[in-house]
Amino acid sequence: MNSRKKIIIVGASGTMGTYLAKALESDHDIVKASSKGSDYQIDITSTSSIEKFYKAVGNFDALVSTAGPTYVGPWKNLTDKEFRKGIEGKMMGQINLVLIGQHYINRKGSFTLISGALTHEPQLHFANASAANGAIDGFVRAAAIELENGIRINAVSPTVIEDSPQYFPFFPGEMPVTMKQLEYGFRKSIFGANTGEIIKPY
Amino acid sequence: MNSRKKIIIVGASGTMGTYLAKALESDHDIVKASSKGSDYQIDITSTSSIEKFYKAVGNFDALVSTAGPTYVGPWKNLTDKEFRKGIEGKMMGQINLVLIGQHYINRKGSFTLISGALTHEPQLHFANASAANGAIDGFVRAAAIELENGIRINAVSPTVIEDSPQYFPFFPGEMPVTMKQLEYGFRKSIFGANTGEIIKPY
Repeated sequence: MNSRKKIIIVGASGTMGTYLAKALESDHDIVKASSKGSDYQIDITSTSSIEKFYKAVGNFDALVSTAGPTYVGPWKNLTDKEFRKGIEGKMMGQINLVLIGQHYINRKGSFTLISGALTHEPQLHFANASAANGAIDGFVRAAAIELENGIRINAVSPTVIEDSPQYFPFFPGEMPVTMKQLEYGFRKSIFGANTGEIIKPY
Repeated sequence: MNSRKKIIIVGASGTMGTYLAKALESDHDIVKASSKGSDYQIDITSTSSIEKFYKAVGNFDALVSTAGPTYVGPWKNLTDKEFRKGIEGKMMGQINLVLIGQHYINRKGSFTLISGALTHEPQLHFANASAANGAIDGFVRAAAIELENGIRINAVSPTVIEDSPQYFPFFPGEMPVTMKQLEYGFRKSIFGANTGEIIKPY
């Protein structure tokens, strides 16, 4: 059903990326990229690094991003400066992966970005992520009506995830998304026909 | 019912700001601010300009922002560079009005930011606004659980507005929000008890 695809995972050395690469690599060609520790090195806060990365990888069928640095910390320390971490990382890092990557992706390819429930279900210390996620969600809906050649775009928007127990104390009462649920979310975007969707894998 | 308040309107020389100032000024003390043409000049893309503005104005009860510069134009011209217009303007401009303004606002004061339906109802040419609005919505929900001393925060999120007919062609089939509806939206945030709400004045 799902023919073999060339799938880029940005954030491949992270918790989500590692799991996803393992889940997909028997049936697909996975290109692993991250800031360090992967086959390809990419700095998503730099448009020239992104451009260089796509040139090196060549055409591809799907890009999945699980890379989302944001500022996590007390509200009283949150100023313009700290806010930039989420803007340059999770927000513009991912948006630039699409704005630049659209010129390298195959027809009917797909982009899948990582968002998060924090934009609708805020938690203390995470205002930067709430804003960055909201930006990603809005961008995904807008990009879906702009991208041509059958190229799709979605976001996967989990709550706290099973394999990151260090975050559980920050998410009181939030039921963790299992890694398997998360995988389903990404599969829906990569192999489905939907576009402009914020996929909640729970 | 609504006791006299000191209300700052940032964007007071714009379409929405002008209307709102006129609607509120008989019952309240309105401080009009904008990039030019108002009593107070403020550059919301500069944290030092914002800081200087608040120092000059002193304590206040409500801040309303109707200031939201974003990049509007063809998707094919949209790169990191154009995206910054909405980041520095509608997104960080407004977020910094809150992060800095929280130190000047009176107890039980309120912040009201401008967002927009584009984050859920995208239109061609407006991806930058969709992202900036989404960031504002996420930030508002997060800030609402962080702000202390009974300080509230909401966003008003209209579609295209009645008094800006130049935008109608970009919003096919979108029923314009009347200026009166918009006024109700702002009144709900300024004089209500709600917080963390994205008010849809339609």
